[in-house]
Amino acid sequence: MKVTTLGFDADDTLWENERFFKLTEERFTELLIDFAEPYHLREKLLAAERRNLKVYGFGIKGFTLSMVETAIEVTDERVPARVIEQILSAGREMHAHPVETLPFVRETLEQLAPDYRMVLITKGDLFDQERKLAASGLGELFDAIEIVSDKTAETYSRIFSEAGESPENAMMVGNSLKSDIVPAIAAGSWGVHIPHDLTWALEHADEPAKAKQYRRLNNVGEVPALLRQIM
Amino acid sequence: MKVTTLGFDADDTLWENERFFKLTEERFTELLIDFAEPYHLREKLLAAERRNLKVYGFGIKGFTLSMVETAIEVTDERVPARVIEQILSAGREMHAHPVETLPFVRETLEQLAPDYRMVLITKGDLFDQERKLAASGLGELFDAIEIVSDKTAETYSRIFSEAGESPENAMMVGNSLKSDIVPAIAAGSWGVHIPHDLTWALEHADEPAKAKQYRRLNNVGEVPALLRQIM
Repeated sequence: MKVTTLGFDADDTLWENERFFKLTEERFTELLIDFAEPYHLREKLLAAERRNLKVYGFGIKGFTLSMVETAIEVTDERVPARVIEQILSAGREMHAHPVETLPFVRETLEQLAPDYRMVLITKGDLFDQERKLAASGLGELFDAIEIVSDKTAETYSRIFSEAGESPENAMMVGNSLKSDIVPAIAAGSWGVHIPHDLTWALEHADEPAKAKQYRRLNNVGEVPALLRQIM
Repeated sequence: MKVTTLGFDADDTLWENERFFKLTEERFTELLIDFAEPYHLREKLLAAERRNLKVYGFGIKGFTLSMVETAIEVTDERVPARVIEQILSAGREMHAHPVETLPFVRETLEQLAPDYRMVLITKGDLFDQERKLAASGLGELFDAIEIVSDKTAETYSRIFSEAGESPENAMMVGNSLKSDIVPAIAAGSWGVHIPHDLTWALEHADEPAKAKQYRRLNNVGEVPALLRQIM
């Protein structure tokens, strides 16, 4: 079936995101260097994030709360309030990080926008995602913006039915196999994986290498050629 | 113009919400009773919430982070980590609070749903609002759900144009003069204020008593009679 709708993930597909989490995580391990080894700390933090996902959902605020929780845990409640304050401060600074679009993004979206229904599909803090979209200047290139709490096959089925013709006429482009690719393919859409150097540990999944509607590209700039090829 | 679309706020209009914030705030003042007077603490917390609104947006996670920040501030960094842990725990519990629909809500929505385009318009944490909507069992009574980061005249203008016929054909029902009523009237819609005993200090605004399309009701159960009256 002809692809008439394109879905794009935002974080680490259109602009840098995970990098700011990693930088904050580094600062976090430095703040607690007297109490725990960086490797051990990162393990504990990831465990807290995993545990809290069903309470906090995705995003910077949940990440900040998980850092505070981990700092208390690894120090056996001995962490000074001054360190907690610095963790809060690091979290607040993440909310103001610059939005750097990835290579080929703007020109490719501008090229595709006249010919396709363009949908941005992103998860995380509503407020923060809106800020980043506004700062990116890419908003006007999309026909619909969907900020969702999680990305499942049902999510793609609903969005591509509402904002496009049907899931079968849609292609999802993103860096997370778990959130962008596997569920989109399950919904009957194309899944186009564009790996990013940094991908959060909780976003990993096996590559659906045998799926007919799966492709892996090097960057967003290769999407137009793929669309011509599968037409 | 004939009202064909009804917008409903959720927190403290359809179900209890502010009560859980107040209960947590009480617990917060008890945890810090050795360091600061409750009144002083509440003032400081409100100041932190106000300051952080543009960073965190609305919702429980931002509230939790503001409590931690305030605890550090009022104790001059002497707050024990154990107390911070209890604040985090109180915040996590808020995410699991039961959803209690307010009197007359379910039967009134059921009565109105066949005859109007029904839109739920709520702000706050995306993830938490979805949880509450699911727990309320009211989701199927709405034609559209809009979880937004803020409620301005533009928000109502957009939503009532997309989900209904036009802002002029819409009525917004809610407990917050600032978020539900004043901006809806500015968008050209009706604004129906249903006061709640507890309303967050940052949601206050003057009553638009002179606006033609403004009404105040005692509860959601009075909406159908108002609709008959203004027809």
